Amino acid sequence: MSRLEERTINTEKIFTGKVISLQVEDVELPNGKTSKREIIKHPGAVAVLAVTEDNKIVMVEQYRKALDKIIAEIPAGKLEAGEEPRVCAERELEEETGYGCTEMEWLISFYTSPGFADELVHLYIAKGLMKKENAASPDEDEFVNLMEVTLDEAISLLKQQRIYDAKTAYAIQYLQLQEAQKK
Amino acid sequence: MSRLEERTINTEKIFTGKVISLQVEDVELPNGKTSKREIIKHPGAVAVLAVTEDNKIVMVEQYRKALDKIIAEIPAGKLEAGEEPRVCAERELEEETGYGCTEMEWLISFYTSPGFADELVHLYIAKGLMKKENAASPDEDEFVNLMEVTLDEAISLLKQQRIYDAKTAYAIQYLQLQEAQKK
Repeated sequence: MSRLEERTINTEKIFTGKVISLQVEDVELPNGKTSKREIIKHPGAVAVLAVTEDNKIVMVEQYRKALDKIIAEIPAGKLEAGEEPRVCAERELEEETGYGCTEMEWLISFYTSPGFADELVHLYIAKGLMKKENAASPDEDEFVNLMEVTLDEAISLLKQQRIYDAKTAYAIQYLQLQEAQKK
Repeated sequence: MSRLEERTINTEKIFTGKVISLQVEDVELPNGKTSKREIIKHPGAVAVLAVTEDNKIVMVEQYRKALDKIIAEIPAGKLEAGEEPRVCAERELEEETGYGCTEMEWLISFYTSPGFADELVHLYIAKGLMKKENAASPDEDEFVNLMEVTLDEAISLLKQQRIYDAKTAYAIQYLQLQEAQKK
């Protein structure tokens, strides 16, 4: 069992944006040598696997500039400063889909890209969905199309790479596992 | 069905590093207004779910500076320029664990953080593992401890958040699904 930690010698702040910031750290490695680490700081995010009474998965189709692609994802969004993840999950579900819910259960939290970013996604499952009359709207620079798909349709979208991101792939596989464990 | 695409008006390159680069794009939104998108470019990566003859999952424990944490992950690494993902998967498995394999099967590819990064991870499952006599070594700034755990142990590590990243959580759930479907 060898020592693994790296000690920061110097931190250079390169960029601070609306969503992410970037810093480069000079680190001392376990063997005493030095290296550089490029690190993205992110506020963290939530994602919501929302399942309707008739067993459809609620998804949002949106354009992602980083990919230059339109993909279908489960509803998700960034944590606001000091926001509790469960509250953020309820807010994002309402803003992106117009749904409220009676149950919001935490499933798992995971880092998306531990090699270079500290983004932690908290995944919830929402049940007891009902459309809200005066639902909050998405952010003013956010445009989404709502989709409701069966598990089989979601698996097919995954194969076509129209569903193409880690949190959504995890969520769909979670439902597959629940189905398989029922049998 | 509304239009979703955003048109880039201007791209400002902020940083180019060893691993990632950062650019800020001014975009025209579907409603004609403008916004800014902060985008990380990444070369893409592979991850390998390697299962031994006695059904243990091969994992590497490593310190992640971005998280300031030691976590256990399936073997993974960045694509080199022009490198085919399968070749990269074999290389990373050998470098990080000393294992070669007779089978390397593609499972899924997913974007890890589509909101701000174009990192695409290609996940493979490796079988027919055998230790290589003169295995290649990890990168000179990479320090890892090898672990081999049962599926139950991996699930327990997930609950303890010692396994804490999306690709590894997906891989473990994949094995759970395979087990459940066998029954």
